[in-house]
This record gives sequence, C-alpha cells and structure tokens, in this order.
Amino acid sequence: MLKKLKQNVYEANLLLPERNLVIYTWGNVSGIDRKKGLVVIKPSGVDYEELSPDDMVVVDMEGNVVEGDYNPSSDLLTHLEIYKHFPNVGGVVHTHSRWATIWAQARRAIPPYGTTHADYMYGSIPCTRPLTQEETESAYELNTGKVIVETFEQGEINPDYVPAVLVSCHGPFTWGKDAFDAVHNAVVLEEVAMMAWHAEVIHNSQKMDDIPSYISDKHFMRKHGPNAYYGQKKK
Amino acid sequence: MLKKLKQNVYEANLLLPERNLVIYTWGNVSGIDRKKGLVVIKPSGVDYEELSPDDMVVVDMEGNVVEGDYNPSSDLLTHLEIYKHFPNVGGVVHTHSRWATIWAQARRAIPPYGTTHADYMYGSIPCTRPLTQEETESAYELNTGKVIVETFEQGEINPDYVPAVLVSCHGPFTWGKDAFDAVHNAVVLEEVAMMAWHAEVIHNSQKMDDIPSYISDKHFMRKHGPNAYYGQKKK
Amino acid sequence: MLKKLKQNVYEANLLLPERNLVIYTWGNVSGIDRKKGLVVIKPSGVDYEELSPDDMVVVDMEGNVVEGDYNPSSDLLTHLEIYKHFPNVGGVVHTHSRWATIWAQARRAIPPYGTTHADYMYGSIPCTRPLTQEETESAYELNTGKVIVETFEQGEINPDYVPAVLVSCHGPFTWGKDAFDAVHNAVVLEEVAMMAWHAEVIHNSQKMDDIPSYISDKHFMRKHGPNAYYGQKKK
Amino acid sequence: MLKKLKQNVYEANLLLPERNLVIYTWGNVSGIDRKKGLVVIKPSGVDYEELSPDDMVVVDMEGNVVEGDYNPSSDLLTHLEIYKHFPNVGGVVHTHSRWATIWAQARRAIPPYGTTHADYMYGSIPCTRPLTQEETESAYELNTGKVIVETFEQGEINPDYVPAVLVSCHGPFTWGKDAFDAVHNAVVLEEVAMMAWHAEVIHNSQKMDDIPSYISDKHFMRKHGPNAYYGQKKK
Repeated sequence: MLKKLKQNVYEANLLLPERNLVIYTWGNVSGIDRKKGLVVIKPSGVDYEELSPDDMVVVDMEGNVVEGDYNPSSDLLTHLEIYKHFPNVGGVVHTHSRWATIWAQARRAIPPYGTTHADYMYGSIPCTRPLTQEETESAYELNTGKVIVETFEQGEINPDYVPAVLVSCHGPFTWGKDAFDAVHNAVVLEEVAMMAWHAEVIHNSQKMDDIPSYISDKHFMRKHGPNAYYGQKKK
Repeated sequence: MLKKLKQNVYEANLLLPERNLVIYTWGNVSGIDRKKGLVVIKPSGVDYEELSPDDMVVVDMEGNVVEGDYNPSSDLLTHLEIYKHFPNVGGVVHTHSRWATIWAQARRAIPPYGTTHADYMYGSIPCTRPLTQEETESAYELNTGKVIVETFEQGEINPDYVPAVLVSCHGPFTWGKDAFDAVHNAVVLEEVAMMAWHAEVIHNSQKMDDIPSYISDKHFMRKHGPNAYYGQKKK
Repeated sequence: MLKKLKQNVYEANLLLPERNLVIYTWGNVSGIDRKKGLVVIKPSGVDYEELSPDDMVVVDMEGNVVEGDYNPSSDLLTHLEIYKHFPNVGGVVHTHSRWATIWAQARRAIPPYGTTHADYMYGSIPCTRPLTQEETESAYELNTGKVIVETFEQGEINPDYVPAVLVSCHGPFTWGKDAFDAVHNAVVLEEVAMMAWHAEVIHNSQKMDDIPSYISDKHFMRKHGPNAYYGQKKK
Repeated sequence: MLKKLKQNVYEANLLLPERNLVIYTWGNVSGIDRKKGLVVIKPSGVDYEELSPDDMVVVDMEGNVVEGDYNPSSDLLTHLEIYKHFPNVGGVVHTHSRWATIWAQARRAIPPYGTTHADYMYGSIPCTRPLTQEETESAYELNTGKVIVETFEQGEINPDYVPAVLVSCHGPFTWGKDAFDAVHNAVVLEEVAMMAWHAEVIHNSQKMDDIPSYISDKHFMRKHGPNAYYGQKKK
C-alpha cells in the first residue's frame, strides 16, 4: 500500500545524510496521505545505507502500525501532532542538524536578519518553551508535538508561512507541502541559522585597524597596477 | 544569437554550486555584449543541474526579453543598473554565499584587514544603506541597482578597483571583465569575508594562559628530542 | 593470533580519517580480548593508508609486545589504564579531533546543553586536571591514564554512562563496548563539542535589529504571495 | 637539471590545493639543493592544474633564473632569505591558508594552547612586526624575508624548533627539511591555528545553564535505560 508515498519518503530520508543534515540515524522524514489518514515514516534507529522503500512504516493517525516490519521512528507522535494541527502540511522532517540545533540549545528563536531568511520564512523561527518535568516524563514525544503547536498558536504564527520550529534544548522540526519540500526547508533552515549566528556576532564586534594603506597599495598595484609584476607576461 | 556568450554565461553559472557559493537556485550570473547592447542571464528559479546553454535568456538594456523561453532572473534589473553605470563591467554575479551574506546581514562593510583582500580589492568592500520602504515596494530590483551605484558614487569608490558590494540585509554582487572574472571575484570575496570575520574577533579576544611549559617540552621532545620515542625506529 | 580482533581494530582505525577525526597519524584505536588479557592497538606513527590488519600490535596488560613488528602507539599505557579501571570497556580511541580538542585546550568540561549530548552522555563530559610537572616528566602516558581514572572516581562519574573524557591541554579519549563503538562515541563527541561551543556563544550574544519588515515582506511575497514573480510560471 | 628536485617541488605544490591550503594560485612551494646553491620554485600565477614538473623555475641564491620558461613566484626573494639565514631548511611554503592568515591579519602570534601545537612547534608561532612604508615600497619581498629573520633573531627563536611564521597582515610561511616536510608543517599550522582560535574564545566565554536534568534523563534512558524504546528490538 502507498507505494508511491513510501518511495518518496524513502528518497527524502536519503537526502538527509546527502545534504549533511544528519550523521548515523539522527533524523527522520515522514509524509502523509490525507485522504486515507495514513502517515509513512522512517523506522527507528535503522541506518540510512540499509534502508529500502519497503522498510518505511505505515501508521494511522493514532500511531498504530498499519504496515511494516519495524518500529516507527521514536519521534512519530511529534510528527502526528504537527499533521493534526497544521492542515496544509504534507511532510515533516526532524534532524539534529548542526546550526539549527545550536540555536535550539541556546534556547533562542532565529531572528530574521536577512533576505535569505525572508525568502522562505515570514518572521522569526520560533523556539518552544522547555517541556516541564511532567510533560517530559509522561508522553514525551506527544508533548513535544503539543508544545510546538502551542508555540504557533500562542505566538499567532502561521505554520504555512514559517515552516520550521526549534524545540528548546533539542533541535529543529520542519515541514512542507510534501516530504521533499520539508527537506528543502530543513536545508534552508540550516543555512539561515548559520548565517544569523555569524551576522549577529560580527554586528556586535568592534572594528580593528585596517591594514596599513601602503601595504594595501603595494599588493593591489603589484597585481593590477601599470607596473604589475605578479604572474606571467601578458601576450 | 550570442552563442559564445551564452556558453560562457552558462559555464560561469555552473561554477557557483561547484565553488560552494550557492545551494538550490540561490544565485545568478550574467554577461554583456556591449557592442550589441544585449545581456545574457540565467533564467529565474531553474535548477543548475537542469540548465543548458540555450536556456540562457537574452535581454536588452531595458530588460525586455529578446530571446529565450524562460523568465530572466528576478534580479535582472539590478544587473542592468550595474552594467549601465560601471562601463568596464563585462559580467555580474549575485549569490547568497555564506560569508559575504553574513557581513551584508550585519550591515557592515568588510574592512581591508589583509593582503589577500588587497590583492583584489582596493579598500573596504562597501555595504549599501538599506532601501527605504518606498524603494522596496516599487521597483525593488531596479532600486537595489540604484543604491549600489549610489554607494560607489557617494563613497567615491572606483568599481574597477572594488569589484564587489554588499547589499544591506541581502547579500553580495560582484563583477569583472567577463562572467568568469565576476565569479572569480565572488570566490575571492567569500574567502576575504570569512577571514576578516575571524581576524577581527580574535584580535578583540583576550589571550589565555599557555599550555604548561613542562607539558609542551614533553610533547616536543618525545617526537623531536634526542630520546624521541614516537613512531618507529629510524633506519 | 586474535585475527578477528586485529581486523576489527584495523577497520576501526581506518574510520578515524574517514570520519575526519584525524589527519596524518594523529589518532589510534585499540580493542581488548578480556579473556586472554590482551590488547590490540595501532602501531605508532604509521600512516593510515599504509596500515594492514597484520600491522596491529598485540600487547599484554603491562604493555609488553606479544606479537607484531612495530612499536605500539605511544599512547598505549593510557589505553591500558582505561581498560584496567573501566571493566566494561572493549575499545578505546584517542584523537586530536578539532572540536573536542578545542574544549580540552580551553580546559573546560563540555556542559550538557542539548538532547544530542543526552542521547549518548549522561551529564558533562569531564576535563581532567593538568598533569603536574612530576607526572609529566616520569611515566607521562601512564599518568595520563591515571588522571583520567581519577577524574571519574573523584567526580563519581560512571564511565559506562559518560564514555568520553578530555585530557586537559591535550585532547579526547573515548571508549565503548568494542573498537567500533568507541569510534562511534568519538564521532558523537565531535558533534556535541561543536554544537555546545556555538550554543554557548550565541546564548551569551545580544540580538540585533531584525531586517526591516517591509524588506522581509517584499522577499517573502515575491516568492510566495498571490503576485509572486520569482521563478517560472506554474503550469 | 635537478630533475628529482623539480619533481618533488612540483608534487609538493600540488599538495597545497589537495590539502585545502590554497585556492587559485594563492601559494607556492620551493626546495633547495644546498650543494649546488640552487632553488626550485613554482612559477608565478600559473594554475595548479596546468603545472608540470618542467614548469618549475630554477634560480640561484640571488634570484637569477638559471632554467625555466616562466617568471618565478613573486615571493621568491622571501624564500631565498629564509634559505640563507636558516641553514637546515630544505623546503619553504607560502600560502594564504584560512586559519593561519586569520591570526596574521589579527597581527597576533599563535599561543601554544595544546599538545597538538607542542608536537610540532616549540612555543608560540611568532607574528612579524608590520613592514614600514619604506620597506614596503622598496624591495618588498626581500624585506618580508628580512623581517621574518629579524623576528627569529630578536625573539631568540630556533627556526628548527618553530618551522612557521606569520607575516603581519599577510599570511604564513612554513619550512622543513624538504618541500614535503614544509607542506606537512603548513597543514599542521592550519589545524593548530583553527583550534587555538576556538580554544581561546570558549575559554573566555561564560557557561550557560545545562539542559534541565529531567530532559537529559529522559533522552539518555529512552536509548540506554532498562526500558529503552529507541531503535529496533535487540535479537
């Protein structure tokens, strides 16, 4: 069943290591068939190089396995909560990609500092509050999904306009119209997170003295001036 | 028409992902035939791996498509403004390359901190002022070009000596005598931006204590001293 | 003798350059046969590309060479001290991998800042005290092992729950149930160290102003709004 | 003439891009035949991919071309000054490699912060004073060599024990017993420079709060505890 969706979810999962978003088994992609009310997701803890499309696990909206030989990703209930509350989402990605996870660990939203961000995300990429001890000890993955939804509802953020969230102390979830689009947004998030990190730090930094201008003159002119002597004679 | 120029602009575009300056479709290269008054540019939003030389779009100096099946890059009018005002420019590149974009997002010029910079750029690489709301909401891409030109004119900067600019909150444009040279300058800019970032931060940092000298002695001498025992016996 | 263990230790050693944990000969892996009381370890200072399984050196628990044509790794006595005091350890890795070494040189434990850390390490990854001059000048490698064990004993840290340590001013040792598991933990340590570094710095940083909202609106809407004009017309 | 030395210098030059120390033509390697008093060096501004062993230029100790169709590297006179004053040097490398250049641009010596440094370099890697205007405008490359020698003489640094220097605002020179050894030291310098940069910054940073311990417990235990549910059932 869901042969095409399994193939897509499988291929989208393989993009995670290919795009340097995960090492080992540190990520998972799912996709949904909204008509049938079924979700296809990566099995838990299986290496990407050993995956095949048929290893993908089919579950219903309560997380019951409908088809598949493996346990689904342990993050399954977080994925389902996103599908239930964000009706236009067709695919979900979770990774521990470096730069997005850095902001999550810093417990900070990623501010919109540039047009690369604005090309994909409308405003800050929010960071959830930390889960409480009770939320953590009971139904942790479900509650992770609930705190994501809470973040968007209380912040009045449109999940179609901001297809990404940072779970505090943990890492990113992204989504999109299908599994590939969700991976695309995970890649974009990583770039945006890396650039925001460095933009803020250098903005807050203090300029030092320029290179002495006579050294600058010397170097520019020995390559580009009328008496340039770098390289070989032009023919 | 312009078969050779299309081929060059096509090849120069492919250098952008090859040199790690862009992911997805985040960049574009153009080249000009000054005699004919025509510009060849990448089509908008087309993946690099699907491009062919014939997909390049030919436009006149007002941005009208003269030949080609696709829409030109959405940044076309910025390219044209650069060609119109900087008469020695033969090729233009726009990317969201990481390190140059970081400085653009920090809204800072890149100061000349070293001879690598001075080998290619004569003085600071300027950052434009932000566009006003009015400039943004009407003719955004044209006004982006205008603010670039304004930056060079008001700063009395010679675009032949500084073949790069940072558009505030956005990213870099570079240029050169042809499309390949413009890409070359985009690669150089990225190196210079990365090194300036780190030079400034470590210049402003505070030295910590050295490794204890007896540990330093031990490690150096076990490899290089008269009684060295690292590695295999020398024959 | 120990043909299978030699093969595994050989393969685990090759993973070090493959996973970008070492350049040149800057690392070594060992494995133990607890029944026989023998350890297999990389020879000292031999390039990874020239290694073969038969080059692995077999030593007893006092460090005497039992089989092999080469000198064992100069860090051998540190490995042995770990095996002697941490009874569940089956493999040990030492590298100068960049991010773990950075924390070691900063003489700081790596704090648990995120769930990636918590997935593998239960609490801080400790950093030893520096060795004293006397410890350094006599039996340096043995004393390095002793200070590692001291760090776990005095800190009441369970080495099965924290399979990694930073030796002050030097670099990391990791371990696991076998040589492959020890390498796995070395890779994880590197990711965790890199992310903790950046999480702390950006947590302590000061947010700057967002991109002007009218520029953000413009960029998001020209790609995603009802009058989007980025890319090609949708069919 | 010098067929073997040319081959070695050629191969050592190719290692520069292979080891990510240079892009384009941003580096050069030379080697010396001390008996004949001749130096073999890369030609200036020629791409690495176009080089052949016969393109190497042979010069005497005054910099006169003895054999070769090309101009020698523009940094030749700096190389010669190093050979003349450091009698055990058999090969010299100059690059603009990122991390070493960053410290050079920051105009700071690289402090010995760890044993990786101490394995190769005995104490700080010095940074020269900036050249004066007069030194820059007359005989720039010769004076660059002179200021390197001055740095070692006035600092009483043994060039056999510290085979590297940072030229202020410019970049590194390294040396060794032959051209390959000089490249090896250039690679080591890059690692050491990168790690010192980050060690100092994180040493000076302020620890933030750990992840809440109940989240840490949850993640560690769902993978490693008695009721672990991550991954597939163990067989």
